[in-house]
Amino acid sequence: MNDSTSHVRAHGRRPDALRDLSLERGFTCHAEGAVLIRMGQTHVLCTASVLDKVPPFLKGKGQGWVTAEYGMLPRATHTRGDREAAKGKQSGRTQEIQRLIGRSLRAVFDLQKLGERTLHLDCDVLQADGGTRCASITGAWLAAADAVDLLLRRGDLAESPIIDQVAAVSVGLYRGAPLLDLDYIEDSGCEADVNVVMTGQGNLVEVQGTAEGRAFSRQELDGLLDLAQGGIAQLVTQQRAHLRPFGG
Amino acid sequence: MNDSTSHVRAHGRRPDALRDLSLERGFTCHAEGAVLIRMGQTHVLCTASVLDKVPPFLKGKGQGWVTAEYGMLPRATHTRGDREAAKGKQSGRTQEIQRLIGRSLRAVFDLQKLGERTLHLDCDVLQADGGTRCASITGAWLAAADAVDLLLRRGDLAESPIIDQVAAVSVGLYRGAPLLDLDYIEDSGCEADVNVVMTGQGNLVEVQGTAEGRAFSRQELDGLLDLAQGGIAQLVTQQRAHLRPFGG
Amino acid sequence: MNDSTSHVRAHGRRPDALRDLSLERGFTCHAEGAVLIRMGQTHVLCTASVLDKVPPFLKGKGQGWVTAEYGMLPRATHTRGDREAAKGKQSGRTQEIQRLIGRSLRAVFDLQKLGERTLHLDCDVLQADGGTRCASITGAWLAAADAVDLLLRRGDLAESPIIDQVAAVSVGLYRGAPLLDLDYIEDSGCEADVNVVMTGQGNLVEVQGTAEGRAFSRQELDGLLDLAQGGIAQLVTQQRAHLRPFGG
Amino acid sequence: MNDSTSHVRAHGRRPDALRDLSLERGFTCHAEGAVLIRMGQTHVLCTASVLDKVPPFLKGKGQGWVTAEYGMLPRATHTRGDREAAKGKQSGRTQEIQRLIGRSLRAVFDLQKLGERTLHLDCDVLQADGGTRCASITGAWLAAADAVDLLLRRGDLAESPIIDQVAAVSVGLYRGAPLLDLDYIEDSGCEADVNVVMTGQGNLVEVQGTAEGRAFSRQELDGLLDLAQGGIAQLVTQQRAHLRPFGG
Amino acid sequence: MNDSTSHVRAHGRRPDALRDLSLERGFTCHAEGAVLIRMGQTHVLCTASVLDKVPPFLKGKGQGWVTAEYGMLPRATHTRGDREAAKGKQSGRTQEIQRLIGRSLRAVFDLQKLGERTLHLDCDVLQADGGTRCASITGAWLAAADAVDLLLRRGDLAESPIIDQVAAVSVGLYRGAPLLDLDYIEDSGCEADVNVVMTGQGNLVEVQGTAEGRAFSRQELDGLLDLAQGGIAQLVTQQRAHLRPFGG
Amino acid sequence: MNDSTSHVRAHGRRPDALRDLSLERGFTCHAEGAVLIRMGQTHVLCTASVLDKVPPFLKGKGQGWVTAEYGMLPRATHTRGDREAAKGKQSGRTQEIQRLIGRSLRAVFDLQKLGERTLHLDCDVLQADGGTRCASITGAWLAAADAVDLLLRRGDLAESPIIDQVAAVSVGLYRGAPLLDLDYIEDSGCEADVNVVMTGQGNLVEVQGTAEGRAFSRQELDGLLDLAQGGIAQLVTQQRAHLRPFGG
Repeated sequence: MNDSTSHVRAHGRRPDALRDLSLERGFTCHAEGAVLIRMGQTHVLCTASVLDKVPPFLKGKGQGWVTAEYGMLPRATHTRGDREAAKGKQSGRTQEIQRLIGRSLRAVFDLQKLGERTLHLDCDVLQADGGTRCASITGAWLAAADAVDLLLRRGDLAESPIIDQVAAVSVGLYRGAPLLDLDYIEDSGCEADVNVVMTGQGNLVEVQGTAEGRAFSRQELDGLLDLAQGGIAQLVTQQRAHLRPFGG
Repeated sequence: MNDSTSHVRAHGRRPDALRDLSLERGFTCHAEGAVLIRMGQTHVLCTASVLDKVPPFLKGKGQGWVTAEYGMLPRATHTRGDREAAKGKQSGRTQEIQRLIGRSLRAVFDLQKLGERTLHLDCDVLQADGGTRCASITGAWLAAADAVDLLLRRGDLAESPIIDQVAAVSVGLYRGAPLLDLDYIEDSGCEADVNVVMTGQGNLVEVQGTAEGRAFSRQELDGLLDLAQGGIAQLVTQQRAHLRPFGG
Repeated sequence: MNDSTSHVRAHGRRPDALRDLSLERGFTCHAEGAVLIRMGQTHVLCTASVLDKVPPFLKGKGQGWVTAEYGMLPRATHTRGDREAAKGKQSGRTQEIQRLIGRSLRAVFDLQKLGERTLHLDCDVLQADGGTRCASITGAWLAAADAVDLLLRRGDLAESPIIDQVAAVSVGLYRGAPLLDLDYIEDSGCEADVNVVMTGQGNLVEVQGTAEGRAFSRQELDGLLDLAQGGIAQLVTQQRAHLRPFGG
Repeated sequence: MNDSTSHVRAHGRRPDALRDLSLERGFTCHAEGAVLIRMGQTHVLCTASVLDKVPPFLKGKGQGWVTAEYGMLPRATHTRGDREAAKGKQSGRTQEIQRLIGRSLRAVFDLQKLGERTLHLDCDVLQADGGTRCASITGAWLAAADAVDLLLRRGDLAESPIIDQVAAVSVGLYRGAPLLDLDYIEDSGCEADVNVVMTGQGNLVEVQGTAEGRAFSRQELDGLLDLAQGGIAQLVTQQRAHLRPFGG
Repeated sequence: MNDSTSHVRAHGRRPDALRDLSLERGFTCHAEGAVLIRMGQTHVLCTASVLDKVPPFLKGKGQGWVTAEYGMLPRATHTRGDREAAKGKQSGRTQEIQRLIGRSLRAVFDLQKLGERTLHLDCDVLQADGGTRCASITGAWLAAADAVDLLLRRGDLAESPIIDQVAAVSVGLYRGAPLLDLDYIEDSGCEADVNVVMTGQGNLVEVQGTAEGRAFSRQELDGLLDLAQGGIAQLVTQQRAHLRPFGG
Repeated sequence: MNDSTSHVRAHGRRPDALRDLSLERGFTCHAEGAVLIRMGQTHVLCTASVLDKVPPFLKGKGQGWVTAEYGMLPRATHTRGDREAAKGKQSGRTQEIQRLIGRSLRAVFDLQKLGERTLHLDCDVLQADGGTRCASITGAWLAAADAVDLLLRRGDLAESPIIDQVAAVSVGLYRGAPLLDLDYIEDSGCEADVNVVMTGQGNLVEVQGTAEGRAFSRQELDGLLDLAQGGIAQLVTQQRAHLRPFGG
């Protein structure tokens, strides 16, 4: 599958380059945090809602909860997909992704410090071009940070429950070569892809690697993880750059 | 319920004034038409998708179909609503609205001229402040017009199946006085509201009037319909202003 | 669409005449109110059940609730329709109609005076020939009145929570001419139809007008509303005629 | 449980007496057969619909199908039950009953002679006082006979596919004594009940006996089956009495 | 249908002989009772779980509940059946069977003596060759007995709530001759079959007889019930043989 | 979290030791392949069914499909879980697992060589003690191999579509130390766990690492992957040992 003619990425992007990232805070007005993240042509609206209740299994335990839901507008993609609300159920893929986002965010929260409330993250893909779950995590963290910031400013929290940053990127083997931050075309054609979620301090939260066309070697995995590590370091830097006071 | 102190509308709006309207075409890149309509703080993303199939009841009849689906992002509103895909069904309200949007658009289409294809309109509310169904209709028409324009430019259609424009506005009795284009606060507190859908030529497509707090007289209805007529005349003018070539 | 040969209605009915109406009280024995309404060949069984509970959003508020459900037996119609219980969901049409019935009845109830109980109206169409939602409203009001009467006689209520009567009729443009109380054939072939719900005092509760074949003018709407007003005046008179003591 | 004071049945009915039976044909106008059966206070509307299709597993096999669905209006009973269409599924009890009705009717049909069509029986309980499944079978047979009669008169069938009559009755042990045709009070309080379905010729189609309060002896079962046999003989006589030409 | 050449049963089994029965206790390790019952090639895993709660309708009434659920692994049968969890609902047949198992077990329990707890029986068919509902009942009783034995040994119960044994067998008319304990081939080809549930003392709990090919006479039913009685007497003897202390 | 007193594993197992593995072929009689895999106290019945059809998206493409479904009997676990068929939907966890099993098996199949048929794998957990998804993959491969073997012996396939073996194991950080093949207690208490799926040749098919209590370093991940690699090498050896002719 390794090809003598190397792959030319859209807009001449280098194999180890991220797509253009933008983080637009306050994109909608009601949510405690509302961030439109754009990773190239992938656009996800991430809102963070503060709810004064916890799921039944946590009632009366004096701690909070962080959870996520994920959706994709029917025409976020090249061809229209069925609306999940009309079909009457969320696909396995949707559930897998929203469970991943929830776990990733909980990994950087001290749920005791959150108090008996839920931070409900909604990640809705307005436009898709690969990497929607990774963009959701990166954007949801900033929306969560804005919501926490509001709780602190309102005096509802005395101390931030956020322990660290969290961000995510996909990497993959495309015609035998490792690529950072796959777009849709690359994602569809790659031999293997790995979604990597890491903290601001550079530790791993999730690694989800899948062979698409052929099994991959341990050495290939190591190369991909190196690449992801570099990409996430840039993402957390950009997240931090947006932490200057908002509306402040 | 008629109150001696008259109601002061947000931003000093007059009783017969529309909220600021903006229509942003090409808001997403995959759909054949994609319009973000903003009526004040109500923001709806309307996409038009061209599908090369028709519903079973129309197969082989040589005509097309126009249909619509409606959704609201969970945190489009003041407090987070449950995600319909997660609940496993669309509410009665959602179904009522999407049936209304579909009927309204079909009223200005010659389905024979559309050929055996479906124009599928998706209206997804990103931010809600009252009047989402009306904004959906007004925005969906422009998205539909952009999709038809693309089919004409591609040579897939020889002639436009669009007969007329269609737009919608809500009117209501608030403390006994008629108001045009209700926002959320006004909508929640009004005695009666009427959603009116009209064509570019000024004929009626739908009238849905509902008493909220008290039954209303025929004379009050007449006053509200007059007000709506004036508002829709402005909306269709603004739709037309956006019909200059897009990407042309 | 206006036709030189005018439409001859079934049984030589005049354009402004209602179909034969009969209201049979006590049609079943368990419900607090049970009325079989027949509008020509449209037969709807309307029962009113008194439940000693209110929906969650009203708990502890010291007021009651009035709600409705609507159904159609599978072979109420010319060809057999699927049973909604077997399909596992109510259609959008069903939900739209039952929401309309509920709103219409609530418009003539003082929910404070009802106390913390629910009046649950079930409207089940045994045989359909157009106008089932209107017949449901007219019949449900009488069933509700019988249930309230029982509560008063039992001493469960000191004062009636019923403020006024409510009844409904459909009107439509058929080959350009206005017709009152459409049957199935007329409903299927009309250019526009309007369902009108009014109180005993002649005020409007709901107006739902829909263009079926072409948009209609304001003047045409005005003519239809006049026609509906006359029809409803007759319906409320007939409702009142049935208010003589039942089982008394 | 055997009680010295014997049970006095409603209206002084003897232990081996059926309730009053009436069979009203043509109760609704659209179905090919439409019978309202009344067994005392149990009223079931049984319609027979002729559909020009068969289920997938029978396609192209040159034979027909007979099937049944069962429903109960929410307020057919003493207290209102939830509407199955609103709950989104049929209960186990409903499914059990409609499977029983379908099997019972198929037992007296020659499906080859029916041709590639389906006879769809709908049994909807308008008012319930025990024995609804048995009344459904007895009434559905007459509705089916009317539908077949219509097919013969229309020339759609050359020969009747009906082999025999079928009818059903419940029997039970109440305070140790056998009773025929239980009403709701008796059904709720009996120690054991048996639903028996038999043909016109006196053979068994279904026997469903259930201990409610205590296991019952073989001898007790024998006594109940004798009682049922006598009751069904009367039911089939009454069915036959209604076979004189209808509308003929 | 009576055939001159008599049916030769698999493994030369006589018409009145049961298949080989084995009862393997402790087949899985977590449940309070866990029995793998094998009736010839029909294998059902029956577990009994003790839950410290009762259904809502029994709350605070000081008594317990016994209930059952039934399932079949997709490839327990000759051809793969759809997984009910994936289809999103249990079939009518599944619900009918699990209701039967529950009723049969409750018939031999004193629910007062069980206290406010639920005994939840799960019967999962690992391999099917006819008679799965009967095997489920026979096996579930032993699992229930093991669970009760554990509660007694733990001191959670002072006295056993089990009143009697319960077991079940199918009988059928095959080419006119009565057969005991039908396997799949016999069950598919028989003219009539009866599932019989009896107590250890020989009383009847359930009789479910169904004509498959033709209605059957009362005399034929009597012969089948005699046959079942003999079979169940053997089953309860074998159940008792397994009541020697387990793990004791 | 690293603890000075090291963890003592059940049965004195060393950190790098697998639990006892047994593979029982032909556990049920109808499926083309039927393997009961036991990894310590985790028991999964894996059946492989050959279906002569492919999913719609593959129709007419001349290739086959391999897919999987996963289930857990309600009392496979310490406390009874709800039956998914009764709840009416599969959980997100179930869907995630069955998608993983399907992808893992497809990674070692040449779908062209399979022809237009589906190999449907059903993995049903009879008893759970951690690692059910990994045991499912390891067992399903052997069931699939038996099914393919049967197709070859029957002449339905000329050549095996199986390219390689596939097996899976979980590894985790428990009190800071790496452990191979976690049981339920270890899985619940670990800081991070990784499910690793590899081919017989030692390449990676899936890596799913999740931080449970704290994010983990790249170095820790590397140690865990080394451990998994050793475990899987033993599993594939044992799979091969079972490839001697079965029933041959």
